Amino acid sequence: MKAAILHGAGDVRFEERDDPRITQPTDAIIRISATCVCGSDLWSYRGVNQVPQPTPFGHEYCGVVEEVGRAVTAVKPGQFVIGSFFASDNTCPHCQLGYQSACQHRELVIGAQAPRLRVPLADGTLVSTPEPPPEQLLPSLLAASDVLGTGWFAADAANVKPGKTVVVVGDGAVGLLAVLSARQMGAERIIAMSRHEARQQLAKEFGATDIVTERGDDGVARIKELTKGIGADCVLECVGTDTSMMQAIRCARPGGYVSYVGVPHGVTLKGEDLFRTHVHLHGGPAPVRRYLPQLIDLIWNRKIDPGKVFDLTLPLEKVAEGYRAMDQRQAIKTLLRP
Amino acid sequence: MKAAILHGAGDVRFEERDDPRITQPTDAIIRISATCVCGSDLWSYRGVNQVPQPTPFGHEYCGVVEEVGRAVTAVKPGQFVIGSFFASDNTCPHCQLGYQSACQHRELVIGAQAPRLRVPLADGTLVSTPEPPPEQLLPSLLAASDVLGTGWFAADAANVKPGKTVVVVGDGAVGLLAVLSARQMGAERIIAMSRHEARQQLAKEFGATDIVTERGDDGVARIKELTKGIGADCVLECVGTDTSMMQAIRCARPGGYVSYVGVPHGVTLKGEDLFRTHVHLHGGPAPVRRYLPQLIDLIWNRKIDPGKVFDLTLPLEKVAEGYRAMDQRQAIKTLLRP
Repeated sequence: MKAAILHGAGDVRFEERDDPRITQPTDAIIRISATCVCGSDLWSYRGVNQVPQPTPFGHEYCGVVEEVGRAVTAVKPGQFVIGSFFASDNTCPHCQLGYQSACQHRELVIGAQAPRLRVPLADGTLVSTPEPPPEQLLPSLLAASDVLGTGWFAADAANVKPGKTVVVVGDGAVGLLAVLSARQMGAERIIAMSRHEARQQLAKEFGATDIVTERGDDGVARIKELTKGIGADCVLECVGTDTSMMQAIRCARPGGYVSYVGVPHGVTLKGEDLFRTHVHLHGGPAPVRRYLPQLIDLIWNRKIDPGKVFDLTLPLEKVAEGYRAMDQRQAIKTLLRP
Repeated sequence: MKAAILHGAGDVRFEERDDPRITQPTDAIIRISATCVCGSDLWSYRGVNQVPQPTPFGHEYCGVVEEVGRAVTAVKPGQFVIGSFFASDNTCPHCQLGYQSACQHRELVIGAQAPRLRVPLADGTLVSTPEPPPEQLLPSLLAASDVLGTGWFAADAANVKPGKTVVVVGDGAVGLLAVLSARQMGAERIIAMSRHEARQQLAKEFGATDIVTERGDDGVARIKELTKGIGADCVLECVGTDTSMMQAIRCARPGGYVSYVGVPHGVTLKGEDLFRTHVHLHGGPAPVRRYLPQLIDLIWNRKIDPGKVFDLTLPLEKVAEGYRAMDQRQAIKTLLRP
């Protein structure tokens, strides 16, 4: 089959690789209906993370089960399924406490930017829809695989509840879906920090009540101004840089909650600084599997439309163009159809 | 009056200084019944924190109100009161959310190792006992002023609840009272990390179910062993060094809670490391005022006896000996009587 292979910085190719096959009795092979490019893929595409050898890429997926290993009982061929970037058994102590992305047997799912994909630990990982979905639900169901689940975790980890004042740092797909998630959880005020008009617009559609264009010190000052000098109850850090992390922490009120869900790059926190702020801090790779049944349900019943974050759809063979558009911020997120 | 003055590293003197007096209408002057030496005082005593000029020391206190400013209405002369090291108005938005140590008008209380003390924001800061306490309750009431309140915050900030497995890092007075607090909050298992026999003994009296003497990698390995490889639900970091902080974080299960209440010295956290652990992190200067009424009540009704952490009692004039004994770990905590 032909699939996306990252050869090095700026070099994604659509080329021949082996078809995936069942290697463990707990595996499933799925035919990908839709996949996409992740903000975190850009760290490698931009050369920040090294890619020592040509590597199949992509970890967001939904599609139809084609084949299952002999130990798989929860999903069967023909079902439409969604899974997370971390395969998990969903039975170990970490999974049972809701941290499936820390599963004792977790495996990273890679190579989803392809027509077919091997998913390990299929029983614990894959969640099926009630029936094959209509075409128009595909983008939203795909979003549940990572960006929506991650944005939802950002809101949950920052203790978003009815009546709270929420700040979202980062206007990428995760940040925008963090806005949507905060709205679903009943936040009263949702301040999106964004300097890009198209993204501001989508943030508003998703439920943002205020837009702050300033960053750094100015951004923090503006948030303080909007909150009567108190700071926000909940701050959702959806970028992963040192600057964005400190900006997030400083926007929170004493005793406020800061979540961080973007893979940190070069973030260093000084104990003294943290100590003074009195914030609650929680984050990590989102345990998307915890939320999948609920998110699929919300999408299935047309309560949310997270698929709107895909503002560019390309055939899989044009995957290189999809990376380029996101790298240059011409697209928020690229959906790929094999 | 004669009081404790820190002149520099290792140099505490009992010498003449001005009597405190009312300077703001919200002040109170109290006659100190008992005060003590704090683990955090040792950072200055050991020269880690610079002391640029001779400075009155001590921030833990209980005693009898002698005089109040004209704006004070909640306490009156003759009442026995306890307050925290941060004076707070107890009415600002931060106070109302329970973070009195981040009060918008907070003031550090200093110079408590003295016969008399000025307490700012008396109405918000001081909590009185139902009547003058019997002599034997003095140590416990004094403990509520800081170490007990801080240990209690450590347990609360680490989400200690009935049935939880708790690890306490640090066997100083705060760590020991964090054990007591975790027991009060219903923890099922409380693992104290301590290498000192007398402190292990007190930890057990306060409710520790297990003692771990190993530190660093070995300590973490032992905690994992005791928790079936899972890690602890709640880890209370009561030291404030880089080593103890990382030890605490690594003892927690994914999704576990780590609190830190010791003033951090040289602690640096890498975003990547934190991200991987999936811990909840919360700490800062303990909002002791939030807990004072409850703690006084528990002491008054003989439900807890936190005063046991004082294993050395000296007249105030021997304050230098009190510092020395704690510095050399001959005493857990020194109580001083003016």
